[in-house]
Amino acid sequence: MGDKNISIGLFGFGCVGQGLYDVLNHSEGLKANISKICVKDKNKKRSIDASYFTYDKEEILKSNNLNVIVELIDNSEEAFSIVKAAMNNGVSVVTANKKMLAEHFRELYHLQEKNNVALIYEGSAGGSIPIIRNLEEYYDNELLSSVKGILNGTCNYILTRMELEKRDYTDVLEDAKKAGFAETDPWLDVAGFDTKFKTLLLTIHAFGIVLNPDDIFNTGIQNISYDDILYAKQRGLRIKMLAVSHKVGDKYRVYAIPHFVNAESELYNVNYEYNAVEVEGAYSCKQTFVGKGAGSHPTGNAVLSDISALRYDYKYGYNKLKKALHGKTEIEEGRKQIEYDFSIKLYIRYNKQEQLKDLEIITIEEEYKSAHTNYIIANVNFKSLFNIYNKRDNKLFICAIE
Amino acid sequence: MGDKNISIGLFGFGCVGQGLYDVLNHSEGLKANISKICVKDKNKKRSIDASYFTYDKEEILKSNNLNVIVELIDNSEEAFSIVKAAMNNGVSVVTANKKMLAEHFRELYHLQEKNNVALIYEGSAGGSIPIIRNLEEYYDNELLSSVKGILNGTCNYILTRMELEKRDYTDVLEDAKKAGFAETDPWLDVAGFDTKFKTLLLTIHAFGIVLNPDDIFNTGIQNISYDDILYAKQRGLRIKMLAVSHKVGDKYRVYAIPHFVNAESELYNVNYEYNAVEVEGAYSCKQTFVGKGAGSHPTGNAVLSDISALRYDYKYGYNKLKKALHGKTEIEEGRKQIEYDFSIKLYIRYNKQEQLKDLEIITIEEEYKSAHTNYIIANVNFKSLFNIYNKRDNKLFICAIE
Repeated sequence: MGDKNISIGLFGFGCVGQGLYDVLNHSEGLKANISKICVKDKNKKRSIDASYFTYDKEEILKSNNLNVIVELIDNSEEAFSIVKAAMNNGVSVVTANKKMLAEHFRELYHLQEKNNVALIYEGSAGGSIPIIRNLEEYYDNELLSSVKGILNGTCNYILTRMELEKRDYTDVLEDAKKAGFAETDPWLDVAGFDTKFKTLLLTIHAFGIVLNPDDIFNTGIQNISYDDILYAKQRGLRIKMLAVSHKVGDKYRVYAIPHFVNAESELYNVNYEYNAVEVEGAYSCKQTFVGKGAGSHPTGNAVLSDISALRYDYKYGYNKLKKALHGKTEIEEGRKQIEYDFSIKLYIRYNKQEQLKDLEIITIEEEYKSAHTNYIIANVNFKSLFNIYNKRDNKLFICAIE
Repeated sequence: MGDKNISIGLFGFGCVGQGLYDVLNHSEGLKANISKICVKDKNKKRSIDASYFTYDKEEILKSNNLNVIVELIDNSEEAFSIVKAAMNNGVSVVTANKKMLAEHFRELYHLQEKNNVALIYEGSAGGSIPIIRNLEEYYDNELLSSVKGILNGTCNYILTRMELEKRDYTDVLEDAKKAGFAETDPWLDVAGFDTKFKTLLLTIHAFGIVLNPDDIFNTGIQNISYDDILYAKQRGLRIKMLAVSHKVGDKYRVYAIPHFVNAESELYNVNYEYNAVEVEGAYSCKQTFVGKGAGSHPTGNAVLSDISALRYDYKYGYNKLKKALHGKTEIEEGRKQIEYDFSIKLYIRYNKQEQLKDLEIITIEEEYKSAHTNYIIANVNFKSLFNIYNKRDNKLFICAIE
C-alpha cells in the first residue's frame, strides 16, 4: 500500500471500535480513515455521525474501495464468517478476536496462504503490549523456553481490588461490571477461557505449536473467596491468573490457572487492568513486557499499530510454525509435543471432601480444615484436572504453587 | 536478501562479539555465518579457529562476498571510520556502539539516505530489550509523552550489590570489574555517559529530536556512598540510575541522573544487570519492558535479531524524525525544543559547603549536617547543573526526587 491513504471498513463499534476511532483521529502520521462501520443495533445511540454506519455487512464486504477490514465484534462465529469472506475477497484483515482466532486458527492460517493476504491481530493478546509482533520479529530465531503472564484484565482487576479493599469476589465482580471491566456474563473472563485463548495464540507464535482450545486446561477465579486472598497475603504472596506455556525437557506444558506469585516476581506489582508477559529464551534470558491489557484506547492503539503495519504489506511470517511443519501442512503434529501426565503442586480450597474425588491426588503436603474453610496443598496429576474442566457446578478454587 | 545465506564480516571479538558467535551457532532458523573477524590484538588467545581472524580491516571492507558488516569494537572513532566505509561501499551495517551513534548520528543518518543502506542498532540500548524496534514499528504513530528507564547494567549491578550486601561503592566497583560488569576505566558507565548516549538514541526514535551528547546533562553514581543507599532504604526507596526523556508542556526535558524510586514503581525490582524502559503514550498508556541490559549472550541476541531483520531488507523508518523535518534536512531544529530553564528537586550530598557554589539553588526544603555527612533536599535550576558537568573532581552525589 506504501504511503497511500488507507480506507478502513470496520465491523463493530463497541469499546475497542470507539477506541480505534479516537486514536485514529488523533494520530498525525498515519493517513487512514474509517469509511464505513457495520453495526447490529439500529436503536443504539452512536457518538459519531449516522452516515458512518451501515447494518448490512455486504455493503462493506462487497465494496471495492477499502484496503483493510477491521473486525471488532463480540460474536466469534459471526466474526469468523466476516473475516473469511474478506480474506477470500483478497482484503487484509486486522482483528482482536482471540476466541475466533483460537477456535478457527487452522482455517485462518490456510486462508492467509491461499489468498496471500494478511491477518494480523496484535490487539488479541496483552492489549497494548506488542507481544505477538515481538515474538514474530524479535524472537524469530531465539530458542524460547517459556512464555507466561497475566493476560486477562478482568481477573487482574478483580484480584487487585479484592486484596486492596479486603472484599469478597461477588461484591467486587459487581463493581467491575459497573466500571466496564467485566461483561454481563463474565464466565469467559473469570473462568480463564479468555486467558486460555490468548495462551493458545502465544504458543503458536513462540513455539510453532497449534492447539485446540479444549487441549488447554483452564480454571480461573470463579470460585475464589477472600480467604484465598488472605492465605496469600499472610505469606507475602499475591494471586495472579496466569497463562503458562513452557518447555520442560523435550515436551511442552500449556495451561491457564491462578498462581501464587511472590514479591520478587516482576508480576507481583502488575495490578488492576495491567497485563504482563514474561518471555524466556536461551540467549536473551528473561524479558518482561508490562502494559494496559484492556480498555478502549490501549487496545485501539494496538489495532492502529496493525493498520499502520499493513501500509508496508506486513504479514506474520509464522517462522516457528513453518519450521515445525518442515514444508508439510500437518498442523496436527505439534499437538503431540504437549505433555499431560505430570505432577503439579496445587492449593485447593473446597467445601466438601467429595468435591475432590475427580482429582488424581498423588500426595498431600498440607491439610487444613475448619468450620469455615478447608484446603489442601497437594501434588495432583495434571491430566485429572480435565475431569473438572469447564464445569460450572464445580466449586473448587485451584491455585498453582511454583 | 530474502532467504539467502547471510555472510557476515565482523569487527571485534570481545564480550558481545563472542556472544554473537555462540548465539548464531545455536540458532536453527537463520542461515547466516561469520566469514571473517577483524581484531586488533595478535597475541590474544582466541576461543575459535585462527582462520577466522584478520588484522587488516580492508580485508573485510574490500570483500565482495559479504552481505552485512557487524561492528562491535570499543573505540568509537575507529568504529565510525569502519561503519562509514562499509556504508559508502553499499553494505548494510549492524552495530551496538552507542557512543559512536550518539557522537556521529547526523552523518550516519545522511549516509543511510545517500547510500540507501541500512544501519540498525538494537543492541546499542537496553541490551536484550527490543526497545528501538518497538519505538520504530509499534509506536510510530503514537503520541509519546515519556521514555525513561534503567539503561546501564554496570550502575544497576553496583547499586543492587551495595544495597543487598551493605557495602560501599569502591569496594563493590572492584568486585564488578572482576565479575566482568565494569570496565577497567569505568568512568563512561558510572558517571552516566553510557546512559546518556542511550537516552540520546531513544529521544531520536521516540520524539524525532536529534541532540548532541553535550546537550544532555548527565551525572551518575561515581560519588555515591553507602549513606545514600541507607537514606533511600530507610524511606522505602531505591536509587536507580535513570535515563529521562519526556515532554512537559510543549518542551522536552532530557537528562541522565540517579533517581529515588519507590516500591510501587515497576523499576524498583529491576536489579543487578537488568535494564528496564518505560514508554508512555497518550493512548497506549504506560508500557514497561524489562530484560538483561548487559552480557555477552543477551546483547549478542539483540545483534542477531538485527542481522535476521536484514534478510527482509529492514531499515529504520525514522518516521518521527522525518515528520519533524517536514522534508527539510535541518536536523538542528529539534534542539530548540529542549528546555533547560526549569526547577528540579534534588537530594545533594556534599562534604564542604563550597562544593555547592556552582549550583543555582532556588529553595532548600531540608538540610542535614553531621560530622559524618551532609545533604540538602533542594529545588535547583536545572541549567546550573551544567556547571559541574563532566568534572571528575566534582564530589557531589546528586539524586533526583520525583
